[in-house]
Amino acid sequence: QGILERLDAGEIVVGDGGFVIALEKRGYVKAGPWTPEAAVEHPEAVRQLHREFLRAGSSVLQTFTFYASEDKLENRGNYVAEKITCQKVNEAACDIAKEVAKEGDALVAGGVSQTPSYLSCKDKAEVKAVFRKQLEVFMRKDVDFLIAEYFEHVEEAVWAVEVLKESGKPVAATMCIGPEGDMHGVPPGQCAVQLVKAGASIVGVNCHFDPDTCLKTVKLMKEGLEAAKLKAYLMSQPLAFHTPDCGKQGFIDLPEFPFGLEPRIVTRWDVQKYARKAYDLGIRYIGGCCGFEPYHIRAIAEELAPERGFLPEASEKHGSWGDSLSMHTKPWVRARARKEYWENLKPASGRPYCPSLSKPDGWGVTKGARELMQQKEATTEEQLKELFQKQKF
Amino acid sequence: QGILERLDAGEIVVGDGGFVIALEKRGYVKAGPWTPEAAVEHPEAVRQLHREFLRAGSSVLQTFTFYASEDKLENRGNYVAEKITCQKVNEAACDIAKEVAKEGDALVAGGVSQTPSYLSCKDKAEVKAVFRKQLEVFMRKDVDFLIAEYFEHVEEAVWAVEVLKESGKPVAATMCIGPEGDMHGVPPGQCAVQLVKAGASIVGVNCHFDPDTCLKTVKLMKEGLEAAKLKAYLMSQPLAFHTPDCGKQGFIDLPEFPFGLEPRIVTRWDVQKYARKAYDLGIRYIGGCCGFEPYHIRAIAEELAPERGFLPEASEKHGSWGDSLSMHTKPWVRARARKEYWENLKPASGRPYCPSLSKPDGWGVTKGARELMQQKEATTEEQLKELFQKQKF
Amino acid sequence: QGILERLDAGEIVVGDGGFVIALEKRGYVKAGPWTPEAAVEHPEAVRQLHREFLRAGSSVLQTFTFYASEDKLENRGNYVAEKITCQKVNEAACDIAKEVAKEGDALVAGGVSQTPSYLSCKDKAEVKAVFRKQLEVFMRKDVDFLIAEYFEHVEEAVWAVEVLKESGKPVAATMCIGPEGDMHGVPPGQCAVQLVKAGASIVGVNCHFDPDTCLKTVKLMKEGLEAAKLKAYLMSQPLAFHTPDCGKQGFIDLPEFPFGLEPRIVTRWDVQKYARKAYDLGIRYIGGCCGFEPYHIRAIAEELAPERGFLPEASEKHGSWGDSLSMHTKPWVRARARKEYWENLKPASGRPYCPSLSKPDGWGVTKGARELMQQKEATTEEQLKELFQKQKF
Amino acid sequence: QGILERLDAGEIVVGDGGFVIALEKRGYVKAGPWTPEAAVEHPEAVRQLHREFLRAGSSVLQTFTFYASEDKLENRGNYVAEKITCQKVNEAACDIAKEVAKEGDALVAGGVSQTPSYLSCKDKAEVKAVFRKQLEVFMRKDVDFLIAEYFEHVEEAVWAVEVLKESGKPVAATMCIGPEGDMHGVPPGQCAVQLVKAGASIVGVNCHFDPDTCLKTVKLMKEGLEAAKLKAYLMSQPLAFHTPDCGKQGFIDLPEFPFGLEPRIVTRWDVQKYARKAYDLGIRYIGGCCGFEPYHIRAIAEELAPERGFLPEASEKHGSWGDSLSMHTKPWVRARARKEYWENLKPASGRPYCPSLSKPDGWGVTKGARELMQQKEATTEEQLKELFQKQKF
Repeated sequence: QGILERLDAGEIVVGDGGFVIALEKRGYVKAGPWTPEAAVEHPEAVRQLHREFLRAGSSVLQTFTFYASEDKLENRGNYVAEKITCQKVNEAACDIAKEVAKEGDALVAGGVSQTPSYLSCKDKAEVKAVFRKQLEVFMRKDVDFLIAEYFEHVEEAVWAVEVLKESGKPVAATMCIGPEGDMHGVPPGQCAVQLVKAGASIVGVNCHFDPDTCLKTVKLMKEGLEAAKLKAYLMSQPLAFHTPDCGKQGFIDLPEFPFGLEPRIVTRWDVQKYARKAYDLGIRYIGGCCGFEPYHIRAIAEELAPERGFLPEASEKHGSWGDSLSMHTKPWVRARARKEYWENLKPASGRPYCPSLSKPDGWGVTKGARELMQQKEATTEEQLKELFQKQKF
Repeated sequence: QGILERLDAGEIVVGDGGFVIALEKRGYVKAGPWTPEAAVEHPEAVRQLHREFLRAGSSVLQTFTFYASEDKLENRGNYVAEKITCQKVNEAACDIAKEVAKEGDALVAGGVSQTPSYLSCKDKAEVKAVFRKQLEVFMRKDVDFLIAEYFEHVEEAVWAVEVLKESGKPVAATMCIGPEGDMHGVPPGQCAVQLVKAGASIVGVNCHFDPDTCLKTVKLMKEGLEAAKLKAYLMSQPLAFHTPDCGKQGFIDLPEFPFGLEPRIVTRWDVQKYARKAYDLGIRYIGGCCGFEPYHIRAIAEELAPERGFLPEASEKHGSWGDSLSMHTKPWVRARARKEYWENLKPASGRPYCPSLSKPDGWGVTKGARELMQQKEATTEEQLKELFQKQKF
Repeated sequence: QGILERLDAGEIVVGDGGFVIALEKRGYVKAGPWTPEAAVEHPEAVRQLHREFLRAGSSVLQTFTFYASEDKLENRGNYVAEKITCQKVNEAACDIAKEVAKEGDALVAGGVSQTPSYLSCKDKAEVKAVFRKQLEVFMRKDVDFLIAEYFEHVEEAVWAVEVLKESGKPVAATMCIGPEGDMHGVPPGQCAVQLVKAGASIVGVNCHFDPDTCLKTVKLMKEGLEAAKLKAYLMSQPLAFHTPDCGKQGFIDLPEFPFGLEPRIVTRWDVQKYARKAYDLGIRYIGGCCGFEPYHIRAIAEELAPERGFLPEASEKHGSWGDSLSMHTKPWVRARARKEYWENLKPASGRPYCPSLSKPDGWGVTKGARELMQQKEATTEEQLKELFQKQKF
Repeated sequence: QGILERLDAGEIVVGDGGFVIALEKRGYVKAGPWTPEAAVEHPEAVRQLHREFLRAGSSVLQTFTFYASEDKLENRGNYVAEKITCQKVNEAACDIAKEVAKEGDALVAGGVSQTPSYLSCKDKAEVKAVFRKQLEVFMRKDVDFLIAEYFEHVEEAVWAVEVLKESGKPVAATMCIGPEGDMHGVPPGQCAVQLVKAGASIVGVNCHFDPDTCLKTVKLMKEGLEAAKLKAYLMSQPLAFHTPDCGKQGFIDLPEFPFGLEPRIVTRWDVQKYARKAYDLGIRYIGGCCGFEPYHIRAIAEELAPERGFLPEASEKHGSWGDSLSMHTKPWVRARARKEYWENLKPASGRPYCPSLSKPDGWGVTKGARELMQQKEATTEEQLKELFQKQKF
């Protein structure tokens, strides 16, 4: 059964977690470029992570093709061998995802994301050509459906959806925006409407913001679709980091990004609350993005086990709401083996010299790079930088 | 070259990280029992984690045999198939570690840890018999050296060292104690002296406390050895959690253990500071325990790269002190590509409704379970529990 | 010169601080009723506080007549002698303020505030009669001008202004609302317009919110007046407590109100920043409310000394930006004798077991008591309470 | 009845609060010099503060003669008129305290504190002469007893006690030290022994540390006296600031001293807990120092009202444990009118961008200024400064 058949049948689709952050911590992805050449260089590491998500309850395995567009891969710098081409990365990623998917009942989704070509103001045809190169691989490898994710500008997301729809396969589209809307100021409701009109069957958000913020944004999308009398499934794949303090461009602008985010990592209980709220809001494709480790995905699957009718495989190694602690040798640890305990715990940071919130950096709060370029205030990266320095942001 | 030859030659030995916590998050270990049956059930997951630590710079791969004593495995509960015996777990763990070690230049260490037999007041011969069962496997599989780790009572640790020394292989011994000493009140310096006298060539601490606290404890051990005119190499494998607020029994007693520790996770920069301090203190076996992920081990290897003369393989995917961010598209993120930035960052928790410290639970702060039992205040677990309840700790 | 002549001449009017909170801490006001019978019972204490504000730079002394309406005083309970009537309290408060004002160059303002009569749905005539009783005293004592302050409903504030305007004296009107507007949902801009149309020459906010929030509200008032092409002077008298976490009804709903607000108290440097921002926004009547002690008022006067042309008397005991510390015996304390130090200090709470933000209590966030009564959902206090309990707020 | 008769009879003596910090906030004392010339310049302000403490339950009024030694007053700088001599300040302070004491049942205590003469290494005779000048005034004004307070070096405190004992009046002596002892490293127990041997009938600590730390220090003093088989009454007058993070020299070294201490101010409930603990420890002279406002002193008197048999006068304006809130109009505020609520509240700081602890400044942590001078490492202030800079503390 395909993604839409499953959703039509009332199934809750559990997404997977974040590959680039997880594999960065495992030693296979470089922060900064964030490109997925590991699919070629270390397939066993990518395979293992897929397996863990599958085991944790993911209904979908996304190909590890984030930032795997040709224009992005060219910018990676010279630490990657030249023979690791865009085509090879996308092929390898499809092969691995499909191989693991067979070990369970998961679908494989080919994914594209925003491109340097768009940001540097290439035209529609050029940007579409970039997406099409990845799509060709996805078609050849026959993935089950397609996801356009991590778009800051709805215009580019619409172009991506249009390309992906050429395939005839179902298309999901998620933007990495918050309640304030995209970088050109298009509000979430309107973004959702444009994406559905372009052909997306599933719309929502991914990355950049914490679960609470993402749910607010999806709610606005839902209201936008209702107002426009459009129908689509809703999807959310938030960060596994608490970011109540971030601005319009999300966690990128927080001073802790990307190497000091640890104190913000959400607990499994935070995820269970998120899963429940998402479900109650009507979202039926519920997953995670950066920071979501396998145990976070398992938390979604456990929270929604009553609705789904089954527990994920990895729950054999996890007691519901901490009940495995009833086997602990210390009585006061055994006393933690209950839902009320974990539900109400306000976990301490162990960092009394640190604050609880940060002020976000950056001028991105109000203006995106492309917008500045379009206004001819900057036409090169260098000019952007100068602009940035002058304005003393 | 064996472990002692390497240390004698002035090499810095980088340890590996924590298996039970990492594999719990990946879905293969159950919190509560914390036993390593995954070595049999899911060897590919254990193998992958070994590989990641090797790649991150570990000079030693510890067999995944934590809590793999027969008496402990019997308590696991019925979620593990009966055929997964103590012997099979230890054998599988050795096979995996040896297989991965061959992929690099790492040594394999067979490990034993504290036993339920000791805690329930079995006698010396019985407790030693438990260790001997694991040792037999290690001898058959011919590991390079042996580690007795995670002991709260020096008496049991000494028994373990005595058994391990029967093998003729080098023995390292680490206790999970803080500066206040073991659960019977033996101070760290005296613990170290006893362990060295029992035959340990390397002594130190692992688990239960954060890097700063562990270094304080090792310093006390060092001073104890110097006062006794004994020689041994020093070793530290702390938690990757900030625990300035814990009591004598360490992080177990913190209300966040084990499912709400996320805000306490140390950053890679915290680890670099730890590695430098450990080195300056004269410690030459520097690794981690619970919470240490591959990127934390890489941070040790990167900090000490000038002294070791080489970077670990995984550094191909990591810029020193964040310099890979110089490739980021946003100028204010590029501005984070420098040591001063990360060294001085006080990372926010994103949790303004949570405190920064907790009060530890438990009566363990003053008295260990065995001590109470020996004083005949309690002779069964049930009596301990009652005692606990009466004292209203 | 009267208040309007001073403002017309470009003078910055510095208000005074909060009497009920300051005198509660000094032992003369009871929290809960918050009534000002101390003007009769302990005139020396009230006199001294006036003197301190005068000395700190206040241009106006407000009579200590907060909650001194007859209907409110009747509710005080029996701990106040019967002979201390509404008339006597208001007379004594006027006498004290006038006596102290003569010691400097300050004006005396008679103040009225919201009434129980309005909240319990008495009609316009009845509510106005309450204000008129206080006004009669103010007229007889010939105060310089009048202030209607601490109103949650613009309707009642307008009635108060209408009564006060009968005197022919200048009237200022401040509401205790935030950017969301009054308890009936009237936005700040519209509140300001209604108050000016009713006859207020000066409008703004007081109490309930911290300086930053109050300035946001006054900015909305300013924009409302500009849109309506109305002219009035702007005034702000915020709390001296940080309340970024409060809801529509302000600090009353914070769990710390009123006996645990200490960690929220603003520093003198916070006040200097507030005074500068208020001035830059065009506010010319700048004072404080609950929590503002004499040294906070001095901070306003010191920050605006360049614009005002003089320092307050109390500055003889205060060095600008900490420069009196240059006389300290310890060199590292002397190093604090500079503006950059205090401007950038992020003061620690010394309370690592406490959070940095709270969730406000109460259903007041969405609906005011009077509104519920008007909707006939409740007609007595008891019914309100029931309603509250049912809704499980 | 004198102080010793009262204590002998089992009375609990409630001290007063901190004058210099309270009067600094009221505009009459300059931070830095911290001298009490206000007794001459603004007697009404000093009188009012005495009255508030008396009303709050103080059994003792200390003359406002802190830092009123001749050598200290000479350093005040030129902002005080020359005619305000040491003699006049001490006389005025005595007159005011005696005048107010008559309004109730309080004793008057003349106080001396540490001197610049001692710190700049003047000899015993010279330092004693300084104390004797103040004592002459106290004798002429016939105060009830004498207090030597705020001494960092026990040697100087002993000299002060010896001088004060010449009067024949009872002498109390408190040091501003923590559990680590005085600036020369003399432990608290030994300090207490020396003070009692010199003639003090009451010993303890004041200032520099928060209530919890002060109680630890007094406990050590108590143990020292018991070991030496000496008898004396115990006294504690701590800060009203939370300072768990300070070093040996207390709050002076905290970055927030003295103009950013607000978030550390203790609540009345913190004080009630302190009073109870102090009483349980056997302390019978229980007061406060810097930061203690009248309502804090009232909290001591209310907590110990069952033992003392009466409430202070100011309790007419205060309900026990918040019960005056039962008169509040909002039901959720009325719900705060109970002991459990305030006892358990963890008050938020409202400052999410600030940490909860600070690192203390200063080299004082290990060595006092006088010690350095005595070791001839420094003989002038300038040299001390240099030393400080070289050591890069």
